[in-house]
Amino acid sequence: MVVDPPYTVHPIGRVRSPLTDRDLAPRQGDEGAPESTLVFTADVAPGLAGIAVGAELLVLTWLDRADRDVLVVHPRGDRDRPEQGVFTTRSPDRPNPIGLHRVTVLSVDGTRLRVRDLEALDGTPVLDVKPVLGPPDER
Amino acid sequence: MVVDPPYTVHPIGRVRSPLTDRDLAPRQGDEGAPESTLVFTADVAPGLAGIAVGAELLVLTWLDRADRDVLVVHPRGDRDRPEQGVFTTRSPDRPNPIGLHRVTVLSVDGTRLRVRDLEALDGTPVLDVKPVLGPPDER
Repeated sequence: MVVDPPYTVHPIGRVRSPLTDRDLAPRQGDEGAPESTLVFTADVAPGLAGIAVGAELLVLTWLDRADRDVLVVHPRGDRDRPEQGVFTTRSPDRPNPIGLHRVTVLSVDGTRLRVRDLEALDGTPVLDVKPVLGPPDER
Repeated sequence: MVVDPPYTVHPIGRVRSPLTDRDLAPRQGDEGAPESTLVFTADVAPGLAGIAVGAELLVLTWLDRADRDVLVVHPRGDRDRPEQGVFTTRSPDRPNPIGLHRVTVLSVDGTRLRVRDLEALDGTPVLDVKPVLGPPDER
């Protein structure tokens, strides 16, 4: 069944992180993010089956502190750089503030995944998790 | 301002593609997808400023024909492969059916981007566009 927009997304979990201040968070996960934990809701537990230590995952989040009315930004918040369209940047401020984060799984404890390289703030809702794709013949 | 869930996403455009049948579409964009066009709404045009021919983009879509109640699947629809949690697969069927597609821009005409390697079906809503990130010192 095709549903008409707008569409509704429901968090499947939350980020637990020492990061609480957007202005102090690293701009990308590989720029100094601390270890953090993805805590999933019990109802999606079957969807996690097969996630193992060492897995490389893409985590989609809802950047709930973003400004959805922003269409142009100074890249990386640097006012010395000319404004660009948000779709050429990773700014959290954008019409649909969905964050995309590549992380590595450090440990698995039921519905809790400890991960590396996640720059999302504490409490950020998690929307989806996908594997990083290998080459076509390994899929 | 932090808003409580659920969250609402609004399409910023649509996919125009020769692909209309999910069963006939390639499973990933680099497995034989035809050229297609991203047609954005006029209100987000400023956000596209700076997207050029040859750009490598990540396109986030809303997979509006997905089954949101699915948590386990046979990978790639192959019933000979054991079931896995959806979060270890790229199945379109998942609680928040957000598609993630890596494409290359072939041409730009106002709010229309012609792209390569997009396996989304005709009419699929577009939610967001992000650049593929280069190494940290080039951001």
